[in-house]
Amino acid sequence: MTLNRKFVLDNRPKTAASADNFRMIEETLPALQDGQVLIRHHYLSLDPYMRGRMNDTKSYAQPQALGQVMIGGTVGEVVESRCDKFRVGDHVVGMGGWQLYSIVDGHLPGAIRKVDTRQVPISHYLGAVGMPGVTAYYGLVHIISPKAGDTVTVSAASGAVGSAFGALAKARGCRVVGIAGGQEKCDYVVNTLGFDACIDYKQHADAVSLSRALHAACPNGIDGHFENVGGKVLDAVMLRTNAFARIAVCGMIAGYDGVPLPMAYPALILVNRLKVEGFIVSEHMDVWPAALQELGQLVGSGQFRPRETVAEGLDSAPEAFLGLLKGRNFGKQLVKLI
Amino acid sequence: MTLNRKFVLDNRPKTAASADNFRMIEETLPALQDGQVLIRHHYLSLDPYMRGRMNDTKSYAQPQALGQVMIGGTVGEVVESRCDKFRVGDHVVGMGGWQLYSIVDGHLPGAIRKVDTRQVPISHYLGAVGMPGVTAYYGLVHIISPKAGDTVTVSAASGAVGSAFGALAKARGCRVVGIAGGQEKCDYVVNTLGFDACIDYKQHADAVSLSRALHAACPNGIDGHFENVGGKVLDAVMLRTNAFARIAVCGMIAGYDGVPLPMAYPALILVNRLKVEGFIVSEHMDVWPAALQELGQLVGSGQFRPRETVAEGLDSAPEAFLGLLKGRNFGKQLVKLI
Repeated sequence: MTLNRKFVLDNRPKTAASADNFRMIEETLPALQDGQVLIRHHYLSLDPYMRGRMNDTKSYAQPQALGQVMIGGTVGEVVESRCDKFRVGDHVVGMGGWQLYSIVDGHLPGAIRKVDTRQVPISHYLGAVGMPGVTAYYGLVHIISPKAGDTVTVSAASGAVGSAFGALAKARGCRVVGIAGGQEKCDYVVNTLGFDACIDYKQHADAVSLSRALHAACPNGIDGHFENVGGKVLDAVMLRTNAFARIAVCGMIAGYDGVPLPMAYPALILVNRLKVEGFIVSEHMDVWPAALQELGQLVGSGQFRPRETVAEGLDSAPEAFLGLLKGRNFGKQLVKLI
Repeated sequence: MTLNRKFVLDNRPKTAASADNFRMIEETLPALQDGQVLIRHHYLSLDPYMRGRMNDTKSYAQPQALGQVMIGGTVGEVVESRCDKFRVGDHVVGMGGWQLYSIVDGHLPGAIRKVDTRQVPISHYLGAVGMPGVTAYYGLVHIISPKAGDTVTVSAASGAVGSAFGALAKARGCRVVGIAGGQEKCDYVVNTLGFDACIDYKQHADAVSLSRALHAACPNGIDGHFENVGGKVLDAVMLRTNAFARIAVCGMIAGYDGVPLPMAYPALILVNRLKVEGFIVSEHMDVWPAALQELGQLVGSGQFRPRETVAEGLDSAPEAFLGLLKGRNFGKQLVKLI
């Protein structure tokens, strides 16, 4: 008899998300059926995409169902197994959701995946060597496709995706310039992550001012950009793009709360012959093996030391998630569950 | 002694372009030097890109120089030649500008090109079998890259680019839906050009209303779009895009007069994983031979009968150009010079 605790989506946000949107449920888990695996979660990943799922609007994914456990990536340990592919003690990554335990069909392709925690700490499989890392890889390698010497930029540079983007771009000989909120994050991006420069967008009231700072940090213009935010940051970057620049659109976090965020200068798509491409990484599973191999090597060798913000205990998940949406985290936002 | 007449750019528009921006000059042409060719222009092409050149702002091309003959595509006849590659009587297409005659170095690669006027009327080498046609070809074939059964849309559908786009897309088995201004143009797009449907954007006050009409005309959504206009038309199309739709951005005519036109729903780039790509056809000379071959065949066989609006005489060029910017032309806008 295992007692589980979980957060379900209780109601959808009208405007901004709030802690009232979630409800805690306690339940006794049923006995395992043949082929199933019981996983004790060590960490839950909190990610901006979850905000989109809370809305009942058309998007690339089904909305999060009301009354069901909130979606979320998890790493943990097999504590009971009736599947010959997994043994007790195995470390696995999966989509266990906002809860302490999950029961998974071990034979379902892609449901859970064993990970090696000898070189890479288990939590990094939710960040640098997981979905955020592969997201950065896809945007950089398959959309921006830079050559050595290109200047590339990334918004939310101190976050899980942005920091992986920087490590991958430096490994390809690019000049990498980050955009982040606050001096502390900018210092970290340059001094610890090794970016060539980082701009604090909070010091700039509008896109034109921000674009002047980008001009100083990118004297040869911008050849590629990875967009995690949208709004004035994207506008400012577009003003500094070179001919044939590529923009990978991964996030529009500033628009998730229902406020429409226009793009101020779409004519630049023509003037600078830009390619602007949106993607979600789960639709490109073919790139995951190569991406995870490179990211695991960068982290395992110590070349890339991703930062994490860890909230303690499942009860802290809603507030940690709301903080993430406001940019209060510093690096990958996790919830420690054990 | 040949007397030439030409329009130069006298001053740059502050907001909207006006006839006062141009000035007529008469001049006596010098005798030909070795290697040169004298061309009597039959037709001058008027195109939206000329408005961009009149501004002194950063763009993909150098601004039109003040006091110099206005840039423009021309077709004409060689009337004197000191180049062994061209003979008197040859029909040629080139960038002769807003004037009656031009003198060209016949050995300069790409400066002028001989055309065969037995199957294709000479004026069409400025339209369907010229730059506008190749523009449509590049956007359709190299950016949208549709498969049979895809639904594709195009703004300014009755124009030179839009009509060629429709003919090329129908030849590939697409459902083709146009967007144009006024019932007369829409009727022409459907009844003469053979589009599956055409929507009159003037009947819709905003993008949401226009997008409802697109929904009715594109019941399976939009897989590819060719943008000649920008503004609410692009917004409306984006609201109806399918996942992985491709948008070729060729023109933002509504924004040329200096009014910034935002894109209302850029988050759709992510939500629908769109690829939005700007291009100018003169940077893709490698596609011209294949494009001109297919377009010449479509016109020569009578499958595609492009429409022209012909202004009479060089003096009419400024007013005809201003009318083009306001959408008063119907099909390819030309000036007859002979």
